[in-house]
Amino acid sequence: MQDPKDAKGLSRWELDTPCLVVAEETLEENIGKMQDHAASFGKKLRPHAKTHKCTRIAQMQKEAGSIGICVAKVSEAEVLVNQGFRGVLITSPVVTGFKIRRLMDCLSRDPGLMVVVDSPANASRLNDEAAGRGLKLGVLVDLDPGMGRTGVAFQEGLAIGQRIESLPSLRLRGVQCYAGQVQHIRSFEERCRASLEWMEQAAEVVRRFRHNGLPCDIFTGGGTGTCEIDCRIPELTDMQVGSYVMMDADYLNIGSSQDPSRFVKFPPSLTLLTTVISANHPGVVTVDAGTKALYRDGGTPYVLDRSGPNLKFEWWGDEHGRILLPKGSPGFEIGDVLELVVSHCDPTVNLFDQLYVTREGRVKEVWPIDMRGRSQ
Amino acid sequence: MQDPKDAKGLSRWELDTPCLVVAEETLEENIGKMQDHAASFGKKLRPHAKTHKCTRIAQMQKEAGSIGICVAKVSEAEVLVNQGFRGVLITSPVVTGFKIRRLMDCLSRDPGLMVVVDSPANASRLNDEAAGRGLKLGVLVDLDPGMGRTGVAFQEGLAIGQRIESLPSLRLRGVQCYAGQVQHIRSFEERCRASLEWMEQAAEVVRRFRHNGLPCDIFTGGGTGTCEIDCRIPELTDMQVGSYVMMDADYLNIGSSQDPSRFVKFPPSLTLLTTVISANHPGVVTVDAGTKALYRDGGTPYVLDRSGPNLKFEWWGDEHGRILLPKGSPGFEIGDVLELVVSHCDPTVNLFDQLYVTREGRVKEVWPIDMRGRSQ
Repeated sequence: MQDPKDAKGLSRWELDTPCLVVAEETLEENIGKMQDHAASFGKKLRPHAKTHKCTRIAQMQKEAGSIGICVAKVSEAEVLVNQGFRGVLITSPVVTGFKIRRLMDCLSRDPGLMVVVDSPANASRLNDEAAGRGLKLGVLVDLDPGMGRTGVAFQEGLAIGQRIESLPSLRLRGVQCYAGQVQHIRSFEERCRASLEWMEQAAEVVRRFRHNGLPCDIFTGGGTGTCEIDCRIPELTDMQVGSYVMMDADYLNIGSSQDPSRFVKFPPSLTLLTTVISANHPGVVTVDAGTKALYRDGGTPYVLDRSGPNLKFEWWGDEHGRILLPKGSPGFEIGDVLELVVSHCDPTVNLFDQLYVTREGRVKEVWPIDMRGRSQ
Repeated sequence: MQDPKDAKGLSRWELDTPCLVVAEETLEENIGKMQDHAASFGKKLRPHAKTHKCTRIAQMQKEAGSIGICVAKVSEAEVLVNQGFRGVLITSPVVTGFKIRRLMDCLSRDPGLMVVVDSPANASRLNDEAAGRGLKLGVLVDLDPGMGRTGVAFQEGLAIGQRIESLPSLRLRGVQCYAGQVQHIRSFEERCRASLEWMEQAAEVVRRFRHNGLPCDIFTGGGTGTCEIDCRIPELTDMQVGSYVMMDADYLNIGSSQDPSRFVKFPPSLTLLTTVISANHPGVVTVDAGTKALYRDGGTPYVLDRSGPNLKFEWWGDEHGRILLPKGSPGFEIGDVLELVVSHCDPTVNLFDQLYVTREGRVKEVWPIDMRGRSQ
């Protein structure tokens, strides 16, 4: 493996492959654009770190003005809290004894730490554990936007909010509603209808909280696919956008307000470099990135035109990929490097230990993907 | 994350999840069975470490009698060579300057190191680099079994063998032929026909090598799916079996000589534990293992019956899975733990940093997956 200190100053085409490269210019552009977009609607950002799993990028998002950061798992929260982040939100229920103890360890260092809750039994257990440690845990009611994955039904939101409010070692902060199932609907209009249908029901829960005197400073939700939609909901306080920072083929293929067939607002900052290792046949070459370097989900990675026009990537096992060349293409020699936009950024980033961060195409820094593998 | 030293002695049901568990009894059984099977045909094993990515398991395979070990990438070879393994075979061409230098570093410590070659230009470059370091590199001709992924056509095998033999700093050792495309053909008879078709053509290359006075001590190839087939080829010296040691749903679903619909010879030693984190709907619960903990490839993981009969796993995003319960099932509560056989072991192992190794259901040791992420 390439030592990070040996990589600094190299052109990205000189890096050992397969590897993940992040163009810092595009990263900054995407972070700034999303921040401005939210601000123009009077909303805040609480970006989701499950996408990049990298403290350095979370830091950039914080410096750009985000009000907090989301994680999916306690083991991710541990990394960010240890790095000094405060007000971390865990967006899935934390239910087992082992994890609740680790959650309380985090809470003792980050008094603003929050977790979502979707069951009264879990609320009671969290309350007991927090009481036993002399702590007070921030809690959001997780509302189920019709997916049935986590969360309570909208009509049960108020009751569980009241239950949480009655528990002395929990501090009710508001609600979360994340409609994961609508984020990738191709048609922008259809996505609008679907997302607003759910988010308006969540907003009704927020109004009922307030009408009944329950605290509700936070109504968090939404993702990259609905960032242009959910900010129209007046009650929404902040958006849990994740993928916008890096982007992937899956998201680039959905429609947007500007283009019915492409999501053009955020260009991909993340790419994967891969090397031709075998070229014994016309019209096809074999590259060194397979399913262990590109997560096989969300469609097919696409080859950037600067590698050559009209090239197509195909999956070819755990260790290899196949690049199909158009007729008349001059082809490639072994050792040639190609650049791909990954199909699904979140699980692909989770395959690597580091990001090569470039400025004008040269490696400026190497950032550890320090939440990689933190699925617990 | 659970500290490995805190896990020792725990029942596997007490582990933090999602996590990978290996039953040592089954691991030993599979290693022994494959060794005996090969020996009964007068063959050796050169197991592929790309499956388990774990030096400790490679060590067990060596102690059981394997004559060597295969890896897919130079960065995996570095780990094994540093741990004292000798005679490591890299089963894909190594073509770039950076990787060739690392290869030579490995060779300087493991004089028996070998790599496959499928291009005369690559052979010349490897020869020059080895000469410059005063080393001699063992080389196998990679034969393409009709896949077009890596390797030369059978009719070109002799010529490239002669080319390699003419280069003073390369030492021709023989040939490799790995028919990856036939390993998962469901019908055992069809798989027999397909594999023998390719492997007999490779055997013909071996005979031509010998007829022309070329060294050919090694004819290596075959995988878990063809282990009962390829050993019928007299010229084959050893098999590059990988998955047999852990197994997965993908392999368990192919036919075998004993059962036309199941591969029953090797039971799964590897399982994934996952916890119910939300249970707000009849007939379905949400667990904490999604695509970041179970690689989405090779079909669907299956739930072991000891977790409850007739349960079905479904993919549900990066962080979660869904378990469908049969009608009338008593259901689960949050915190309950289920055990799954993974869909494809190789890329799933590559998602984790450690294996919890159990004996009689209790954690005996925690082994680092020390080649995890080594895709370079």
